[in-house]
Formats: sequence, structure tokens, C-alpha cells
Amino acid sequence: MSITINYNNMMAHKIGDKGFTWEQIVATKKQAIQALKTVQANRGLGMQGWMQLPHADKAEISKIKKTAKQIAKSCDYFVVLGIGGSALGPTAVFTAIKHLYFNQLPKKVRKAPQFYVIDNVDPERMNALFDIIDIKKTIFNVVTKSGATSETMAQYLIVLDMLKKELGDGYKDHIVCTTSQNRGNLIKIAKEEGFETFYIPDGVGGRFSELCPVGLLPAAVEGIDISAMLKGAAHMDRICKKADLKSNPALITAVLQYLSMKQGKNISVMMPYADSLKYIADWYAQLWAESLGKNKDKEGREIDPVGQTPVKALGVTDQHSQVQLYANGPFDKVVTFLEVGSFRGDTDIPQGCPDVPDVNFLCGNTLSTLLTNELFATRYALTKAKMANYTIKMDVVDEYHLGQLLYLFEMQTAYAGELLGIDTYNQPGVEEGKNATYALFGKKGYEAKAEELNNAPQDNQEYII
Amino acid sequence: MSITINYNNMMAHKIGDKGFTWEQIVATKKQAIQALKTVQANRGLGMQGWMQLPHADKAEISKIKKTAKQIAKSCDYFVVLGIGGSALGPTAVFTAIKHLYFNQLPKKVRKAPQFYVIDNVDPERMNALFDIIDIKKTIFNVVTKSGATSETMAQYLIVLDMLKKELGDGYKDHIVCTTSQNRGNLIKIAKEEGFETFYIPDGVGGRFSELCPVGLLPAAVEGIDISAMLKGAAHMDRICKKADLKSNPALITAVLQYLSMKQGKNISVMMPYADSLKYIADWYAQLWAESLGKNKDKEGREIDPVGQTPVKALGVTDQHSQVQLYANGPFDKVVTFLEVGSFRGDTDIPQGCPDVPDVNFLCGNTLSTLLTNELFATRYALTKAKMANYTIKMDVVDEYHLGQLLYLFEMQTAYAGELLGIDTYNQPGVEEGKNATYALFGKKGYEAKAEELNNAPQDNQEYII
Repeated sequence: MSITINYNNMMAHKIGDKGFTWEQIVATKKQAIQALKTVQANRGLGMQGWMQLPHADKAEISKIKKTAKQIAKSCDYFVVLGIGGSALGPTAVFTAIKHLYFNQLPKKVRKAPQFYVIDNVDPERMNALFDIIDIKKTIFNVVTKSGATSETMAQYLIVLDMLKKELGDGYKDHIVCTTSQNRGNLIKIAKEEGFETFYIPDGVGGRFSELCPVGLLPAAVEGIDISAMLKGAAHMDRICKKADLKSNPALITAVLQYLSMKQGKNISVMMPYADSLKYIADWYAQLWAESLGKNKDKEGREIDPVGQTPVKALGVTDQHSQVQLYANGPFDKVVTFLEVGSFRGDTDIPQGCPDVPDVNFLCGNTLSTLLTNELFATRYALTKAKMANYTIKMDVVDEYHLGQLLYLFEMQTAYAGELLGIDTYNQPGVEEGKNATYALFGKKGYEAKAEELNNAPQDNQEYII
Repeated sequence: MSITINYNNMMAHKIGDKGFTWEQIVATKKQAIQALKTVQANRGLGMQGWMQLPHADKAEISKIKKTAKQIAKSCDYFVVLGIGGSALGPTAVFTAIKHLYFNQLPKKVRKAPQFYVIDNVDPERMNALFDIIDIKKTIFNVVTKSGATSETMAQYLIVLDMLKKELGDGYKDHIVCTTSQNRGNLIKIAKEEGFETFYIPDGVGGRFSELCPVGLLPAAVEGIDISAMLKGAAHMDRICKKADLKSNPALITAVLQYLSMKQGKNISVMMPYADSLKYIADWYAQLWAESLGKNKDKEGREIDPVGQTPVKALGVTDQHSQVQLYANGPFDKVVTFLEVGSFRGDTDIPQGCPDVPDVNFLCGNTLSTLLTNELFATRYALTKAKMANYTIKMDVVDEYHLGQLLYLFEMQTAYAGELLGIDTYNQPGVEEGKNATYALFGKKGYEAKAEELNNAPQDNQEYII
């Protein structure tokens, strides 16, 4: 079954002038079809290598699975060292598919190594990790395309040193690299050291990398069915090619978000109603923010800054945190609900509190009914308050539907970027911060930046309390 | 030492016309002082009972500590059943103070029970919890002021049933209630059952409840120094009373956020640079969103909707996810950096990669230097891009500074609500969803709502893909 999208609550018949008529949507049809054609024409070219990932070579997938099996057998802990897309994708998929307290299950129940993603350079986090893993029983997956990601390479240096001290020459078996095949530092290091290595295709950027070895290797190590994920993505790819607003889910959601941005809705809330999908919202937040937050057009000309700010929410939990704002606050948001048709297990709410009608009405139902009813009710309330929202529904959370979902969001992002006329795949805005970091460390070549930092206007002590 | 606030990067001398001159700030001085006077005059009254919490009765704190000690001794798992403020505060404080993988440490290292907060009714989460705890060795803390919170009471019913089946009459020792002393369902149930009970003062709403037993009991069970937390909060209370923009941190940040909202900055990003403070951003998100997201003034008259949308980010991690948008996207945000002066432990980055200058420049430094330099550089880059930001710095993450921080945000919220002229303490926007949920369950008294739901406009199948 396919994921379905219900966007009635984006439309004028539901939310009046906060929504759209079909005529308003059709007015962008020409532009939308052009965006689709451009995106599809560039499939596999430039930074659109990610569009080919669902159709990966079977031999490559077999290699990943085979190595993953060996890794799973040979270690008790599998630790991803990566940041950004290298961390968010693996975390999202692991959380979606595996037990919600996986690392705390006994080994024989887990049947796969404990799983950690270390995506920060907080020393307290790093030290805490070493308190609970045995590095002699750990395999570290170092993930960086360029091998120049400071955070990941700092982690690599720390881990390498520890492994050498603990294991002597045996350290080589404890590091697996996922990096560019053709350039950068890590491939050079990996070859010299003889580390097992997987490749990130040139045309695949971090935030579009979940369906290449960046995401597939960790998933396969944990016993997740990566073939089903790719199959789901390939299915979604077929649907998202259609030059038709009424049957192409990525194209219609891109258009709806684009029109909403034009209306001044600068916030995109992603609200899954399932703990398992919580980190899908984090993964989407990077994809949407880094791809669309731009102040130059594709030709490099300055434009008024664009880009919605993604907000992560979780149903029902955040009904008790964010929904007051969503219901009564400004009309500056589009809420995307992620709904799950049926859960993998349920819990009965037993009889009790016969004298407390405020509680007793729940008895005899199940938790999933409570959650589903609350989603229905919250969606109803937001719609009644004329707050734009739509629902993406997946029948079940499994690898196949997850592959569909990830690819749907990637295609939506590609189409939205094209509609905005920006470069979806660059991230020039992070260069300034990177360069300033290099300058602070006295890195060669950044003397001018160091000088600039020295000459920057000083803080006025009057504005410090 | 006090927390310091540096708001230079909100000012025109740093970010030009995206910031403020001192004259612009002073223009709101009268209004700000009036807001302060109103808030202070209502200390302890109505829903401002939270302002008295830092000055709690010593006997009450002693009782919490004593019971907490007994709980810690008598169980291996301590599980909070609560949602909203009852969950967010305990999670934020636990994560800030305790080991980052606390639950996975051996018992003799932990010296306190494993700690879980179940703040959703996702059946997969509930089942997963029961897979890893032994309920015979678990104490459940049921937290709801009214005892009518459907999610928490559903959890209570499930747990009660399981405990009775496992332990017979012994179940009574496994439930501790935190609820209203005077009204509601849970106090009634607790008295009938003879459960140990702590009280939530009448004038303390969920999002302002961390410094009452809602937060203090779980913290004390885990060995967190709640007296130091309260001492920090009391210190901040003294500072935040001052009728002076230049020396009152809560008043100046409230004014800066208020003026930013007037400028159209409808997004408040909270970005701690420390894994330990990650969930402070979640706690703040509820406090800020539910308090300020309103469409009626204090007198109940309709106004244009107000309220910034809080966004949670984590440094340095989200530099690789959100900072592109923050640097190049629309000028619709205020970024609050949370900086830590010194970490509780550090990690050296050892020598290595001598032939790779892109990596080698890091060697001989520490992770905390890398993190601190990246914060400096990111802040510099955002300021250069004229993106409004300010920094809250705490010397160390400990109970005393944490108490300061929590109370600072509460006071800032109180002042901001007053400046906006809204009721900071209500949440009328969630009623519609609650009532619709009741109607879906066929709860008595909600027949009209059920009828309304039945008659709501149907979804048009044309808008479903």
C-alpha cells in the first residue's frame, strides 16, 4: 500500500481564506510542471545523484548486507560517528523500526549490537559513551564524505587513539569508513590504514544520503530490511514522476508549502503521532531547512531570503506543549500530521475508577484508540481554528513505508526548491562559521579571517547583565 | 556566580536595522516597568503561585527529600507518568544533572533508580517500557493536578491493573501521586487507596511546576540537590525584581523578545551548546508557546493572534542542520544561545593525521575547545548576517545554576505575557480538541459536540492522494 496524503484542511472549503481554492492551486500548475520537468531532467546529474539511490545495483546492496551481517556478529556495540545527515537519517530509521528501548534489551532479545549515534563534540557525551561501551567489542562507523568534517574527524582521532592503546594492530577491524570514493581525506586515510570502506556517491549530499551506505549500512547492521526500504522508495519515485498535481504527492505538497510560504506561513510543523516516528521530524528539519533556507537564486543573484523554519512536534505529547499556540496563535504555520494506521501492538485500558466519570470513560478502550482519537480531535480543532494542516498516513511503520516516506520528503524538497528558484543542494551559509572556527584554531590559510575576528566590533559591556 | 546575559547581538551597533538602539528599548521602559509591577504585585496570587516556589517551606522540602530517599532505596526503576509540564521539567533537570547514559550504568555506579518519563500514550512505547523494567521493583509517580488528564490516567489504569495482578495488596507501595490537595480526581483516589501523595499548589500551572513537587520529587529521587536548585531560583528571583532594564535579566530579555515580535520575528530559537541542556529547550518550548500563544487579551477581548513559535536546536549538532537557514533565511528569528563556561570533564584530541592539514589542526586541543570555538564562530557568522541573537551563559551546569536558568525563563515569560497584554496562564486553545476527544469516546455531556463532529463538512476525495 502507498502512503496517502489528505490535504482537505489546506483548502478554502475547510479553512476559508487561510486556505486555497483549487483555482489558486491550478494557477501554479505551469510552474509546478516546469519544476517537475527540471528536477526529473537532472536525475542523476550534479547533486541529484540521490534520485538514483532507490534503484541501486543489487551487487552493492548485497555487499552492504554481507558486511553488515559480519559486523553484527563481531561486535556488541555499533557506533556511528557523524553529524548532520550522517546522524539524522540513521537515527530516524533505527528509531522507527527497532524496539523503543533497544539498547536496554538483553543481548539474546536484541540479536544485533547496541546502537549509538554520536553527533556532537560535547565532551560529556563522549565520556559518557565510553562509560557504557566496551571499545574492544565496538565497531565505529566513521561517516563523512569529505573527511574534513571537524566534529567527526575529532571523534575519529579520539577513537583511533583509544583503539590502538587497547588493541594494538587489531584496531583496524574496529573502524569502518563511509566516505567519497574519489576525493577527500577519509578515503586516503582508509586506504592507508586498510579500513573496510563504503562509498558515498558524488551526487549525494548529506541530507539526501539516507538511502546510500550512510544510512543503509547502520540499518543493515541492526537487522533492518534495507531492500524493503529501497523498494518503498522506488515505488514513491514512480508516483512522484507524474506530471499531474492530483496524483503526485510530492508535487502537490511542494505546491501547497510554496503557496503557504507566499501567504507568509514561514513555519513548517512536522507532527508525527507515533514515538517511533519522532526522529523523522528531526531528519525532515535538516532536509527542509538546509535545502530551502537561501538568499540567492540558482544563478547566484541575491533575492529576498526564503525558507520555512521546520518545527518538530510529537503527538499526543505536544498537545500539552505546542497546540495552544497552534490553535490560538498567529496563522504563520503549516502543520503536517504523520498518522499511523495500525500500531505494532496495543495496550488495553482496563476497568477502574468507576466513581470517576472523568477517567472511567476511557476504560475498555485501548491506548491506540486514545491516540488516534486525539489526533482526529486535534486536527478537527486546528481546522476549526482555520490553521492550515494536512495529513500523511502510512498504514504501518515498516521498512517499505518508511522508504516511501523518506523519498516523498526528498522529492517534495526538490520540487519546492525548484519552485523557489534556489539551489536546493548547496549550503553557503555555513561557510562563514566554518572559516571563523578555522581562524580561531590558527589553521593555515585563515590568517585574514583571524585578523577580521580580531578587528570585529567589541561587545559593549553595557549590554551584558 | 550568576548567569550572565549578553545581548549585544540584538543591538543596532552589531546588526544594523535588524536590531535595536538603546533609545528604542528605552521607549518601552514605562510599559516594561508597569509589566514588572503588575507581575510582582500578583506574586502568589491567582496563577502566580509559582513565584513563591523558590521560597518553599523547609519542612516541605525535608519531607520530599526524606520520601525520595526511601523511594530511591526501595526500587530499581522510577517512572514518571505525566504529560506536558509534568514530563518536560523532570526530563530537563534529570538530563542536565545526571550522566548522559544514566540508565545504562551499573546499579552500583548509578546509586539511584533508573529513570523514565512516559509522556505519551503510544502503545509501542508503553509495551517497550514493560519489556525493560521489572514492575515489582518499580515505583510509579502519577502526576496530574486535576486527575482528569486522559493520557496520564489511562497510564495509571494500566499500571494499577498490572501491579495488582503482580503484587496483590502490595501495589499500594508502588504508586506515589503528585496532585492538587483540594480538588480533582486523583487526590480522591489517592486518599481511598492510601497512596503516598505530594501536592501541587493551586496557583501553579503545569508549565510553571518544575520547582514544586512535580519536579522536585523525581529530582530528589535521583539524588539531585533540590535545595541548591531552589537557592538558585531564589537568587534569580531577587535579581528579576529590579525595576531596571539594565540589571534585570528577565525584564530585558522579555522586552527584547517583545520588540522582536513587533518587528515580525515570530520564531524563538533556543540553542544550547551542551547535550546536557538539550531538554531545557523542550521545557522552554512549552513555557513560551502555551503562555504566549493567544488570541484574546487579559479581559477576554479578541486580538490579533500573538505568540512566537519556539524552535529547539542543539549546538554544535544543528550547525549541520539548521544554521544554513538561520544564516541565509528570512530575518524572522531570535536565536538564544545557551553557553556553558566549563564542562564536567573534557577529552583531548590526540595527535594524528599528520599529512592531512584539514584534520591535523585539531590535534592537541580538546573537545570543549572545539565546541566553544564553534559556538563563538557560529554566533559571529549569524551576527555578521544580521541575525538577531543573544547568549545566556552559565559557568557550570549544576543544580544552583539550573535553578537560576529555569526561574529566569519563567520570569521572562511572565513579563512578556504582561507586555503582550494577554493571560499568560490559561490555555483555552486546547479545550476544543479535548472536547472533541470526549465526544469521540461517547463521554456523557458531550452529545452536542458529537453531533457537531457528525455534521462537520466531509473530506473531498479529490484532495486525497
